[in-house]
Amino acid sequence: MKAHIITIGDEILIGQIINSNAAWIGEKLSEININVGSTSVVGDDVKQIIQEFQRTYDSNDIVIVTGGLGPTHDDVTRKCVVDFFKTDLIIDENVLDDIKKFFEVRNRKLTKTNEDQALIPEIATPIRNSRGTAPGFWIEKENKVFVVMPGVPYEMKGMMESFVLPKLQEKNQNKKIIVRKNLLTTGIPESVLYDKLGNIEELMEGNKLAFLPNQFGVRMRLNIEGNSIEEANNKLDEIEQKIRSLVGRYIYGKDNDQLEEVIAKLMIDRGFKLAVAESCTGGLISSRITNVSGSSQFFERGVITYSNAAKVELLHVKEDTIQKYGAVSLEVCRQMAEGVKAISGIDIGLAVTGILGPTGATPTKPVGLVYIGLCDEKICTAKEFHFGDNRLLNKDRASQAALEMLRRHLLGIDYDD
Amino acid sequence: MKAHIITIGDEILIGQIINSNAAWIGEKLSEININVGSTSVVGDDVKQIIQEFQRTYDSNDIVIVTGGLGPTHDDVTRKCVVDFFKTDLIIDENVLDDIKKFFEVRNRKLTKTNEDQALIPEIATPIRNSRGTAPGFWIEKENKVFVVMPGVPYEMKGMMESFVLPKLQEKNQNKKIIVRKNLLTTGIPESVLYDKLGNIEELMEGNKLAFLPNQFGVRMRLNIEGNSIEEANNKLDEIEQKIRSLVGRYIYGKDNDQLEEVIAKLMIDRGFKLAVAESCTGGLISSRITNVSGSSQFFERGVITYSNAAKVELLHVKEDTIQKYGAVSLEVCRQMAEGVKAISGIDIGLAVTGILGPTGATPTKPVGLVYIGLCDEKICTAKEFHFGDNRLLNKDRASQAALEMLRRHLLGIDYDD
Repeated sequence: MKAHIITIGDEILIGQIINSNAAWIGEKLSEININVGSTSVVGDDVKQIIQEFQRTYDSNDIVIVTGGLGPTHDDVTRKCVVDFFKTDLIIDENVLDDIKKFFEVRNRKLTKTNEDQALIPEIATPIRNSRGTAPGFWIEKENKVFVVMPGVPYEMKGMMESFVLPKLQEKNQNKKIIVRKNLLTTGIPESVLYDKLGNIEELMEGNKLAFLPNQFGVRMRLNIEGNSIEEANNKLDEIEQKIRSLVGRYIYGKDNDQLEEVIAKLMIDRGFKLAVAESCTGGLISSRITNVSGSSQFFERGVITYSNAAKVELLHVKEDTIQKYGAVSLEVCRQMAEGVKAISGIDIGLAVTGILGPTGATPTKPVGLVYIGLCDEKICTAKEFHFGDNRLLNKDRASQAALEMLRRHLLGIDYDD
Repeated sequence: MKAHIITIGDEILIGQIINSNAAWIGEKLSEININVGSTSVVGDDVKQIIQEFQRTYDSNDIVIVTGGLGPTHDDVTRKCVVDFFKTDLIIDENVLDDIKKFFEVRNRKLTKTNEDQALIPEIATPIRNSRGTAPGFWIEKENKVFVVMPGVPYEMKGMMESFVLPKLQEKNQNKKIIVRKNLLTTGIPESVLYDKLGNIEELMEGNKLAFLPNQFGVRMRLNIEGNSIEEANNKLDEIEQKIRSLVGRYIYGKDNDQLEEVIAKLMIDRGFKLAVAESCTGGLISSRITNVSGSSQFFERGVITYSNAAKVELLHVKEDTIQKYGAVSLEVCRQMAEGVKAISGIDIGLAVTGILGPTGATPTKPVGLVYIGLCDEKICTAKEFHFGDNRLLNKDRASQAALEMLRRHLLGIDYDD
């Protein structure tokens, strides 16, 4: 079954609101194996909305519409439904009761405008709204399903979960099952990852593999088809195994995992404690680590030594090392990692120093140059990185590289890049 | 001129990524008075993409496409452009140079896959990409404009700002003028702000005012119409003046201003230096401050004293104060602010301690309890705040409240809530 999602509202077209409704609905439909082939956004305009109804109704099995069901003058969706299906509005007594109760409970006075929200297109089954006043509409005609819901995310989600998703699942006697998994990599460019995987067609056995890069790394999304959940999951396991045998060292997690959560688990499992010394990342690494609930079990302290004085006073970096090599250097970075470990009396010290831009470059040290250092009981090492020229993206990249360096260290994987 | 935006990518249809590109482009086009009538999303499927090109090209003056331009097999947009416009691919030497330089600077090896990205549809003007390797395409035909850009937001935005928006603005001679401005407030609830403004209709003289709250505060968006830029701007100035006379103390900036940028300007203007001691915010305040280029002019250092030992050793917080009042208390917070100021030898110390959840609450100290302290040469104060129960939102709220406390301190405005 093929579905299309229409979102109605000028505020989305001009970017005042991001279309999170379509994303949420798309995710939920995918979960029950309904294929969302396309989505669209149109403004609060009767003619345009009816045209969009026609176009998408013709070429899909399911059309899901949100928005424009409120009580004010710019909410025209109900009128469009009536025109499009050539039907009439009739009062639905159950919905009217719902609305009356909604106002009673809140001690608010019911107006004529509110009462009118109980007017439902005759062709539709009302979808009752436990979280607001506007009902939704479920229309079945010519073996197609046409669903209309309010644009308020909380109300729409309530209707989807209690009514729309169960009904669609019932109708969707599915043959083909699709399972999805994301494998998250970092510290390897997209093109290198691609090359290391060799012949993708052969590897995936006709299934889909997508590469989705951002400043935190490259996400590989696998879509695997099967005749049953078991078959699809077995195929997924088999293909994932092959991928991991080729590029497993770069994979730090799956789906919505965050690298800091992976680190937290590894650190707590091993009973290690961490201290962090940051210069250019300015606290971002510590902030990411402390995003994880329970991080106090392994994160002891952090210092942000933005000035040279702070590096010397807090971390005992040698003044003549700064003089000789500069604050952004392999040597200073190593001393920072060593220093933060020593003052905290814990297992691992992690340190970052660099030039993130847009200013601060020197003839020998360009914007994007970053050093990351790591010291534990046995080793004390630092590595050079080259990132781009955007300060904020560089902060993300540097924090990600530092956490990845720690991950590979904990797992005994070389950071070769 | 009527525009349509097409976003390409399965990941958007299934809700893994929210379509922020369309929102951003829609906002930018609105700003130069180009009307975005509709937007759509289609999957990584050649046939479907070409159909969507045809449909939207027929009924719009401008079509803007993002996504599917990467170097891997699932990036099919370029092929679709070639098929749709019945053109050929040719190597663009300038683009090839850009790509070679991109890899040179990053010390990475160029592959054949990367080199192929310099192949441009013959009909197109390449849009050069200073932030990545895939070029965009600008196509003008039959008085229509067709633009294709990569889906990576940072790369797309670079192309829009440096090339696409200026070119479109040139082509668009407009009549009715709308000017927009956002006034950013924090430390005041939406309903209180609303009440303080009194009669909104009268205040706005028929123009639009929207309230957009999030964890950082409430944004007021003004849309002001006029027959000319001058007329609209004069009206805007007049209305803004009235709003500021009512709630100016809560307004920290406008449009895309960040509170940390406002702080940076104030601190640098006054020649003050800052040190920050964080417990629950875990480095977020320092990270936000150091997001601002030039922050090293006033930010001396930060410490993240997650453990009690770190509070005592680094900040000289008294052990018996922690024993008596607990680490999350007004007293410890004040000592943290005092301590970080003293060890850094600078003008202002800012400190935060709290319980951000989901764990860590005690019978007397609930999740969401946060103390923020500030010390300078004259005063040493701390304040109690109560936030919600979501850890990450609480981090944002606490960091915003701390920065706002500093802003009001610098401007001599009472923090009365």
